[in-house]
Amino acid sequence: MKEHRISSAVIRRLPQYLRVLEELKLEGIERISSGDLSDRIGHTASQIRQDLNHFGGFGQQGYGYNVNDLYDEIAKIIGLDRKYKMVFVGCGRLGQAIANFVRTYQEHYEVIGMFDINPALIGTSPVGIEVLPQEELPAFLKKNRPDIGVITVPKSQAPEIADVFRAGGVSGIWNFAPVDLESTDDIPVNNVHIADTLQSLTYYINH
Amino acid sequence: MKEHRISSAVIRRLPQYLRVLEELKLEGIERISSGDLSDRIGHTASQIRQDLNHFGGFGQQGYGYNVNDLYDEIAKIIGLDRKYKMVFVGCGRLGQAIANFVRTYQEHYEVIGMFDINPALIGTSPVGIEVLPQEELPAFLKKNRPDIGVITVPKSQAPEIADVFRAGGVSGIWNFAPVDLESTDDIPVNNVHIADTLQSLTYYINH
Repeated sequence: MKEHRISSAVIRRLPQYLRVLEELKLEGIERISSGDLSDRIGHTASQIRQDLNHFGGFGQQGYGYNVNDLYDEIAKIIGLDRKYKMVFVGCGRLGQAIANFVRTYQEHYEVIGMFDINPALIGTSPVGIEVLPQEELPAFLKKNRPDIGVITVPKSQAPEIADVFRAGGVSGIWNFAPVDLESTDDIPVNNVHIADTLQSLTYYINH
Repeated sequence: MKEHRISSAVIRRLPQYLRVLEELKLEGIERISSGDLSDRIGHTASQIRQDLNHFGGFGQQGYGYNVNDLYDEIAKIIGLDRKYKMVFVGCGRLGQAIANFVRTYQEHYEVIGMFDINPALIGTSPVGIEVLPQEELPAFLKKNRPDIGVITVPKSQAPEIADVFRAGGVSGIWNFAPVDLESTDDIPVNNVHIADTLQSLTYYINH
């Protein structure tokens, strides 16, 4: 597969394709023309073809796409053919909401640890997993080797938590604190800026 | 200002610029070269110039950008020179987390109503605002004319809530349910797909 230099825009579209294909599967649709697929996805058929060509291409001239096969292929490209262990730091409202949300994707993602510095939260199990004191995080990472570290603490604490995650050998960081934490060659970071989506909505409201 | 046909990619970058400019303000930096700004933002200087040119351009040859002025201008382009009233439907963990998050931006956004169908939540005030029964939403919208409707309910209920928001005259919809609700010419929708960000992180972990 030609997987080099794939732009972040293409990578951003893969989950979108998967979402639409999942809907099609639920509707019992087994095969879709590239035109109909592009209508559902909201990108041009040529854009979709171009995106999928990065990974070897899957459509057949005159047939379109087999929904199940394309779903499985994209899932595999993303890496959903295995399961990922996650650890959360920050068990306030946001951490609880995201951890709870992740449980709806338990086929692929498993929350194995939740940490906080707040004594009122430590020892409670807001999403079915006991919140542990944050000072135990490094030992936990060493012992349990989670794949993904999730940061749901205030901005000021986020860089320090990221350092602990990196030192503890996580494979990736999912950051919800409103700060851009940097990816390294080894450890990608996805900074989710919820406020940005509100601001872009605000722009569209005004224009 | 030339504001026509501005791509969604440019609009997506504006909040990012604002975030970096806010950091610069906090650091007491008053003026920045386009090269230094591009280092901080992570796009090329030419990309930034091109983006800002859509709105008339702000940099001065040989001077760079005045941080405060550029911040104010971008805030104004986004529409942050006024305040927006928001109503939430869905007061579970996610709704509470997002509403709580919005309160940190209270200069520009104000939560004026929270609604749910769950009797256990109705009458409680998890983020300082009493949760009202969802059947009262249409009357509330008519009376209070909020700007932004926020959807933090499960996927199956989201389209119906969007219809109530549209009928109730909101100016925009901020949707967190994992379904693509469509924008109309009058009422933009921003669909925030949290799962997509986890999947793209998963991709980068594997490649």
